[in-house]
Amino acid sequence: MDHYSKLAGEALGRLRSANPVVHSITNYVVMNSTANVLLAMGASPIMAHATEELNDIVNIASSIVINIGTLSSQWIESMNHACRLAKVAGKPLVLDPVGSGATKFRTDTACNIVKTTVPTVVRGNASEILSLSPQGGTTRGVDSLHTMEDAFEAAKAVAAKLGTCIAVTGERDLVTDGSRSLVIANGHSFMRKVTGTGCAATVIVAAFLAVESDPVIASAAALAFFGLAGEKAAAESSGPGTFWQKTLDALYNVTPKDLEAGARITEA
Amino acid sequence: MDHYSKLAGEALGRLRSANPVVHSITNYVVMNSTANVLLAMGASPIMAHATEELNDIVNIASSIVINIGTLSSQWIESMNHACRLAKVAGKPLVLDPVGSGATKFRTDTACNIVKTTVPTVVRGNASEILSLSPQGGTTRGVDSLHTMEDAFEAAKAVAAKLGTCIAVTGERDLVTDGSRSLVIANGHSFMRKVTGTGCAATVIVAAFLAVESDPVIASAAALAFFGLAGEKAAAESSGPGTFWQKTLDALYNVTPKDLEAGARITEA
Amino acid sequence: MDHYSKLAGEALGRLRSANPVVHSITNYVVMNSTANVLLAMGASPIMAHATEELNDIVNIASSIVINIGTLSSQWIESMNHACRLAKVAGKPLVLDPVGSGATKFRTDTACNIVKTTVPTVVRGNASEILSLSPQGGTTRGVDSLHTMEDAFEAAKAVAAKLGTCIAVTGERDLVTDGSRSLVIANGHSFMRKVTGTGCAATVIVAAFLAVESDPVIASAAALAFFGLAGEKAAAESSGPGTFWQKTLDALYNVTPKDLEAGARITEA
Repeated sequence: MDHYSKLAGEALGRLRSANPVVHSITNYVVMNSTANVLLAMGASPIMAHATEELNDIVNIASSIVINIGTLSSQWIESMNHACRLAKVAGKPLVLDPVGSGATKFRTDTACNIVKTTVPTVVRGNASEILSLSPQGGTTRGVDSLHTMEDAFEAAKAVAAKLGTCIAVTGERDLVTDGSRSLVIANGHSFMRKVTGTGCAATVIVAAFLAVESDPVIASAAALAFFGLAGEKAAAESSGPGTFWQKTLDALYNVTPKDLEAGARITEA
Repeated sequence: MDHYSKLAGEALGRLRSANPVVHSITNYVVMNSTANVLLAMGASPIMAHATEELNDIVNIASSIVINIGTLSSQWIESMNHACRLAKVAGKPLVLDPVGSGATKFRTDTACNIVKTTVPTVVRGNASEILSLSPQGGTTRGVDSLHTMEDAFEAAKAVAAKLGTCIAVTGERDLVTDGSRSLVIANGHSFMRKVTGTGCAATVIVAAFLAVESDPVIASAAALAFFGLAGEKAAAESSGPGTFWQKTLDALYNVTPKDLEAGARITEA
Repeated sequence: MDHYSKLAGEALGRLRSANPVVHSITNYVVMNSTANVLLAMGASPIMAHATEELNDIVNIASSIVINIGTLSSQWIESMNHACRLAKVAGKPLVLDPVGSGATKFRTDTACNIVKTTVPTVVRGNASEILSLSPQGGTTRGVDSLHTMEDAFEAAKAVAAKLGTCIAVTGERDLVTDGSRSLVIANGHSFMRKVTGTGCAATVIVAAFLAVESDPVIASAAALAFFGLAGEKAAAESSGPGTFWQKTLDALYNVTPKDLEAGARITEA
């Protein structure tokens, strides 16, 4: 058991005791599945988007998730409002820039949140993260990234520029604040065959941020935990449908000791 | 087999023959799962919120569910409109005041529906139900309830004041119209680890109201049925993911005779 | 192995290689489940409804799905806009007229899309399809259809009038463009006990249209594939909950050869 695995297990232990409340303004596709992820792992989900109640909700929440997967102008207003409230309340904020880079509308929305709020963590895939770079996608786009190492280097540069912690997920995951970087090697390919697994990773990061103030450690612990649950689930699954249900089971059943034993976190 | 178990089994038998249509204006998180609950148990779900079509929908429906889990001002308008139509049409109406008491916006919305419409049944957890009391949460809030018995006594008082049937769900459930009260002891702790199980209880109550005009009996039968399905599911599950799928299976497989044999309903 | 089974298997083979992107503007109830269907079978889902980004999204997509299951006036505007963009871009468009015939609002919305856009395929149940007939429901309504054969004859007439391909799903399915008609005999009764299986059929048709330009063949292949997955799933299920997860597994596991061997497609 190495240093980071130990920290991950300890964070999961605190999470199970604290049962943190995670507030999400998220996309319609994953509301049910990410709520189930949070409940299974030992957190409590709240979904609310009306500006009339966001102040009350942010006060209750331990951390806040903004996920731009199914945008509209009204929801963007709610998201921006929640970001301001989270900032004022000093609550951890995680941005999931779903589809940023694929449409100008999403890129603009995500970049605006990053600029005005500086989230505690931004969790996305390589192309979403790269689209947030102030240089823009034209000068060094996703197409220029021929290997995962390229993507990781680019993500470190984006984190340094934006002054935030970035979690890039893929076959392997990178967590970086620009100076410190950790690679997480847990996970299973079935995760790419279920909708909302990226969004699930995001809410798990948010739950860990409620009990671990270092965003690099919190994110690495979260991704190792989720990946380990996926590994355990895949061993008992015949396809992506049963896989997801077994993943929820594993999020419930994986103990801090299991995580200490199974996390594969290394310095990048 | 006691009196109430027999009534519950008979109601389930009628429900399976009638295949009642249940219309929900509900939250985004549980639309899929509550639709699946209704289909599995032998009812037919409709989800519709546009005011333009509510009159047609309410005419088709056997009962109506209003669930305030993900509110916005436009949806509140739809909910209020559907409540009026249900009242005029004389259709059973069930309110699920999700999160009432947690934000003023939700408490106001729920209290307004209770005052203007008087739902046939209000189904919630203890704090949601208490927040509906005309005395408000300041004089006798949830924090004052040290035992489930306290919560049950408070719920009876709320039911009497509001003139409606109230179903409080938790480790045990209480159904009360203020004068008659039944306790339901079916269920399993996994139900608290899946999102929308409260909302599922609500739509099951609505389905039973389509075939049983006494709201106390309908609600008790519904909660015993759901709880029994959960018990059967838990015996075959390795965690909350598989548990929920097995619960849907059990809602499909539990027969009226099973319910007569397994319901645990007693007078409070 | 007959002619149509062979074409179905070949189409599935192309689909697995192409991994087509299917854009849906669909109802809240099925967003998660249809996204999972597309991922499991080898396609990629996008859900987006903001008019601000529809042009970017339609450009990325290989085919477009419009599903009117939870309408509102704003979403209708998005649907109409996406239909126009799909038409201009020459992308296959599939309409799922959920609940058309049940409310005037839905019938009007569906008929307007059919009239202004002429979708590549319209997929619905018998009453939804009949409601689209220019003669309207009063002269030859669903009640006049005493057998599945009646429904099939009526659907052929509607397809001929509207100049589109129609897929009517039920115990058996019919695909017709008015002159050519195929009957698909795959499927399982559990499919009627899970929400969104019709909507799932629709997105599967859209995915096949990305790799098979003949809408009659694409639709028949899609419905045989989905039905076969359901048959395989039912053999391993104890109810509708486990059935749906096993269906997702089967959508992932069924090979082109399995489909060639298991498709039951005949000329009507």
